[in-house]
Amino acid sequence: MASAPPGPVAIVAGGGAFPLELAEAAEAAGRAVRIVALRGFADRALKRRGVVWADMLDPSRVLALLKDIRPACVVLAGAVTRPGPFAISSVFSAYRNRDEIGRILSAGDDRLLRGVVELIEEAGFAVVGPHEIAPGLLVGDGPIGQRRLSDTNRADAATAFALLAATGRFDVGQAVVVSGGRVLAVEGPEGTDAMLERVASLQRWRRVRLDGSGGVLAKAPKPGQDWRIDLPAVGPRTIRKMRAAGLTGLALRAGGVFAIARQEMIDAAERADIAIEGFADDGGGA
Amino acid sequence: MASAPPGPVAIVAGGGAFPLELAEAAEAAGRAVRIVALRGFADRALKRRGVVWADMLDPSRVLALLKDIRPACVVLAGAVTRPGPFAISSVFSAYRNRDEIGRILSAGDDRLLRGVVELIEEAGFAVVGPHEIAPGLLVGDGPIGQRRLSDTNRADAATAFALLAATGRFDVGQAVVVSGGRVLAVEGPEGTDAMLERVASLQRWRRVRLDGSGGVLAKAPKPGQDWRIDLPAVGPRTIRKMRAAGLTGLALRAGGVFAIARQEMIDAAERADIAIEGFADDGGGA
Repeated sequence: MASAPPGPVAIVAGGGAFPLELAEAAEAAGRAVRIVALRGFADRALKRRGVVWADMLDPSRVLALLKDIRPACVVLAGAVTRPGPFAISSVFSAYRNRDEIGRILSAGDDRLLRGVVELIEEAGFAVVGPHEIAPGLLVGDGPIGQRRLSDTNRADAATAFALLAATGRFDVGQAVVVSGGRVLAVEGPEGTDAMLERVASLQRWRRVRLDGSGGVLAKAPKPGQDWRIDLPAVGPRTIRKMRAAGLTGLALRAGGVFAIARQEMIDAAERADIAIEGFADDGGGA
Repeated sequence: MASAPPGPVAIVAGGGAFPLELAEAAEAAGRAVRIVALRGFADRALKRRGVVWADMLDPSRVLALLKDIRPACVVLAGAVTRPGPFAISSVFSAYRNRDEIGRILSAGDDRLLRGVVELIEEAGFAVVGPHEIAPGLLVGDGPIGQRRLSDTNRADAATAFALLAATGRFDVGQAVVVSGGRVLAVEGPEGTDAMLERVASLQRWRRVRLDGSGGVLAKAPKPGQDWRIDLPAVGPRTIRKMRAAGLTGLALRAGGVFAIARQEMIDAAERADIAIEGFADDGGGA
């Protein structure tokens, strides 16, 4: 895994606990960190640090702040909600022609974020993924917490990882749910949480019943994963949604998935009788 | 494609228009047809034929009726809703031990229907798929109706069929949605209609935007498809759901998908500016 160039890092922070966790992990790894917090998205908890604020719809301010910071690299972290098309157009019109805006708008969230990455890179900054400044936040090989996956869960994880490998080149999703050998859901643009809600409602509507062993959520990066804009991640909310869906095992590709709020996630999994385990590429979950 | 043994055929009829359409197609092909209609599921329209009625939860009556009919083969056709676990247990307990019931209950709708097929076959009848008595109901190669898929739709169909081929061995689903090269959904146990509703709501919640050309629903049988219990089928409702999801092309594997209420479907597609086309295996949709 390539490591980011030495020197201070600038984190452009959206919502959730991840930006602060990332900043602290990068600092623990010996880096100077400056945070550009996106107004309306970034967590108020960031206020106790010396962050600078910018509006998501004012990229020229973001770029000016970055020029001020002179970072060795820039990381985008945390959730942002897609603004309406009009708002996006009005921002990008300063930077892109109408055709390009149309393409960006029609291509979904990924392409939009890729447009943001391009703007920052064209201004002369290197944008890197969070794992390059804080590899310790990635899931490693082996159990996370006290529990290990059951044998049935383990077989389901192997099926799930094989399916993710088969669909990888189609850029379709990073997660699947398998129960007793049966594939219950393949993640699409709806994301993992919505997929888990679907698995819960399939059971409510008696479309499926879980295997007696529960079932597995497996998550892995896509082969062409762009870590700068799209992170496979799990956290306490993943566990809550898994519990509601009756799942019992969380199988993660080691080195390929971020654990957000790890201790809180482990505690939640312990309470929910859910095992979490990282699987190295070679193991295949089998 | 194997053809059913000659002689009269018994159709065990669940809900919807398909059982009657199937009966008429089989009769047009020169077969004698008798219908065992499942009470509470089968369409009232069947009443104008001389059908016999049975309760889904009374398989001994179904078997007695079949012994009366002495059919060359039996076809299950039309939708049935999964009864509650208690009702299923009470039925199967006459025929299966507790462990087997547990396995049937835990394995989802497919396994349940497979249990029904087994009961009928153990009583000495051959259960076959509808295509063996009415191959004309399958989609053929080429356009259905006046329209052809656009070039973009055609490229999306090729992507979709390739994805379905890659996921085939995982028994995951028979349909996917692709728009401008992007996979928007892979069907799971929720079925095609619910998947199309998901694609519509992804757009409502601005998670995706369709390509300017709309997008394609592609449908094909699974490699190990059990035609006796699980038919890939499309019909007028498919078109209505596609329209609500903004899709513009319906790509079907020729010889692998049933068209239900074909003329009504073609008319609905014409009104909705949706093209329907069958693709032979060799074409791959490209």
